[in-house]
Amino acid sequence: MTLNRQVQLIAQPEGVPGAIDFELRTVSVREIGEGEFLVRNLVLSLDPYIRTAITGRHIGHRPLDPGDVIYGSCVGQVVQSRHPGYAEGEFVVLESGWQDYFVANGGEHQHVRKVSAVDPLSAHLGIIGMPGLTAWAGIECLADVKLGDTVVVSAAAGAVGGAAGQIARAKGCRVVGLVGSTEKGRLITDRYGFDAAINYRDADWVARLAAACPDGINAFFDAVGGTTLNAVTPLLALYGSIICVGLALPSDRGGGSAAPVGFNTGLLMARCGRMHGLIVYDYYDRFDHFVRIAEAMLANGSLILQEDRVEGLENAPGLFDRLMAGETSGKAIVAIAEPSA
Amino acid sequence: MTLNRQVQLIAQPEGVPGAIDFELRTVSVREIGEGEFLVRNLVLSLDPYIRTAITGRHIGHRPLDPGDVIYGSCVGQVVQSRHPGYAEGEFVVLESGWQDYFVANGGEHQHVRKVSAVDPLSAHLGIIGMPGLTAWAGIECLADVKLGDTVVVSAAAGAVGGAAGQIARAKGCRVVGLVGSTEKGRLITDRYGFDAAINYRDADWVARLAAACPDGINAFFDAVGGTTLNAVTPLLALYGSIICVGLALPSDRGGGSAAPVGFNTGLLMARCGRMHGLIVYDYYDRFDHFVRIAEAMLANGSLILQEDRVEGLENAPGLFDRLMAGETSGKAIVAIAEPSA
Repeated sequence: MTLNRQVQLIAQPEGVPGAIDFELRTVSVREIGEGEFLVRNLVLSLDPYIRTAITGRHIGHRPLDPGDVIYGSCVGQVVQSRHPGYAEGEFVVLESGWQDYFVANGGEHQHVRKVSAVDPLSAHLGIIGMPGLTAWAGIECLADVKLGDTVVVSAAAGAVGGAAGQIARAKGCRVVGLVGSTEKGRLITDRYGFDAAINYRDADWVARLAAACPDGINAFFDAVGGTTLNAVTPLLALYGSIICVGLALPSDRGGGSAAPVGFNTGLLMARCGRMHGLIVYDYYDRFDHFVRIAEAMLANGSLILQEDRVEGLENAPGLFDRLMAGETSGKAIVAIAEPSA
Repeated sequence: MTLNRQVQLIAQPEGVPGAIDFELRTVSVREIGEGEFLVRNLVLSLDPYIRTAITGRHIGHRPLDPGDVIYGSCVGQVVQSRHPGYAEGEFVVLESGWQDYFVANGGEHQHVRKVSAVDPLSAHLGIIGMPGLTAWAGIECLADVKLGDTVVVSAAAGAVGGAAGQIARAKGCRVVGLVGSTEKGRLITDRYGFDAAINYRDADWVARLAAACPDGINAFFDAVGGTTLNAVTPLLALYGSIICVGLALPSDRGGGSAAPVGFNTGLLMARCGRMHGLIVYDYYDRFDHFVRIAEAMLANGSLILQEDRVEGLENAPGLFDRLMAGETSGKAIVAIAEPSA
């Protein structure tokens, strides 16, 4: 009998979910049936969407009940299979949750995708994975940026924002990132190659951003919304675009309302601008195409892998708390097990 | 000496500008200089933007001082000219304000455009003028609608909304309009050929709109914003578009704040939608192209001219009050004088 450690939800949280709402429990793995395969999770991805998925505010995720395993994507290895499409030893990325093992059947909601044995495997959860695809879809498919354009990215030290800036830079754009600390500013300029970093905690950050974008902003890749979006939009160049990939609610930081601060559409009119809403699942049919491009960029150094990594499933809740507090840099990764040869 | 009646601003209004803030005064017309021409205003257009232009919240208009002539576009006739580009007898549309005469020089801010002697001349202020161009730019240039698409238009009995619906219908779309009364609903279905009208004062208007758009909304042409926009956006079809052409502020109706109710960008994300901000001045270099198309449509009956018309400059303030109260139907027009042969 194989034991399976799981991080489960104790009860629906009042505010932002965190370590205090989670508990590590051990169960046994059930026998797989016909059409199923057993995956051993090797690395787990912690992403901002988990916050809203737990409480049922994220597309495609029902709210979790007490005792349910916390949502999360992993790179895993098939260790046993009764499914014709998956063979023992293969690597997959899938929505298998915070646990050692997962019985999969390849169903739509599991988002199972076979992946290469790239080193580190966790790259499939970040720069060449879902966050990278989000960035690529926004910059390459929606923003329509040209050589020499100025691109601004919010949450620029995060997995999605960092990838968006690097992809825009690879397309010949000037890239300015919004971050919450000097340290993160150094990360995006020195490691990722952003042209400038603006700390949104500085009182005069909007004036600094304007000075860093003398010809206006051609594209704003935004994962924050609210007051940030309303402050940046007047700096758009005429016909500039805004790519919305996320929303930080006041309540996410433990204060204010659960409703977003609304966007002033008059600001978009004044710039004759356009705004796109982006949901990454919409681009999953182009995932292989993106991975081919991104693996080559990762190999030649035009994409940089940066992780905030902890060892051991038991350390996932602590890292999640740091992610929610905006204290992580790069992709938040939990190493669970080593692959077998 | 030629006398010139003017409607002037008495003082900057506290709330919505209206008749109480205006005064009719008579001055004399000055001699025209080299490079100038004298225009006699024949018909005056009343448009929602005048409200924000008076107070300096509209692009390209400084706030008016006491004694300034109220902003407004007219069809006028050149009655005297020392400008090589304009000859006596020609018809022009221009920003000449609420008055009998205007000394023009063709400068950029006057937006002077020569127009045909179509009957009625006021069509150049509505369906084949700036409101029509706004509608055409939104539906034809930005919304990218296809045959059989469902298009929803807010403020559908207004000059811009009515034109947008008729243009969308001419392109083979199903068109649903939002209006504020049963009478306006009849206007847009019976006269303009909209497929359905929804009265936004009905408590269950969102459910009615959803029922009228069973396949979702492919394009929402919106001059209102705020809570209306937040209510309609969830009904967008996947990849649907929103064209923002205006904002009705709570304070415009004499209550609430002067800041708009913000848009929830998460709703746009959920539909993978896009939003365009439209400023009609941006399309003035395509005005002649639009007028050619629109004049043909007006002649063959696929565009309908509908006016709320008063006779006499002295009646402009009263009509403006009705426009601000949402009580007009079709294009608000003030007849000032007859053309000379």
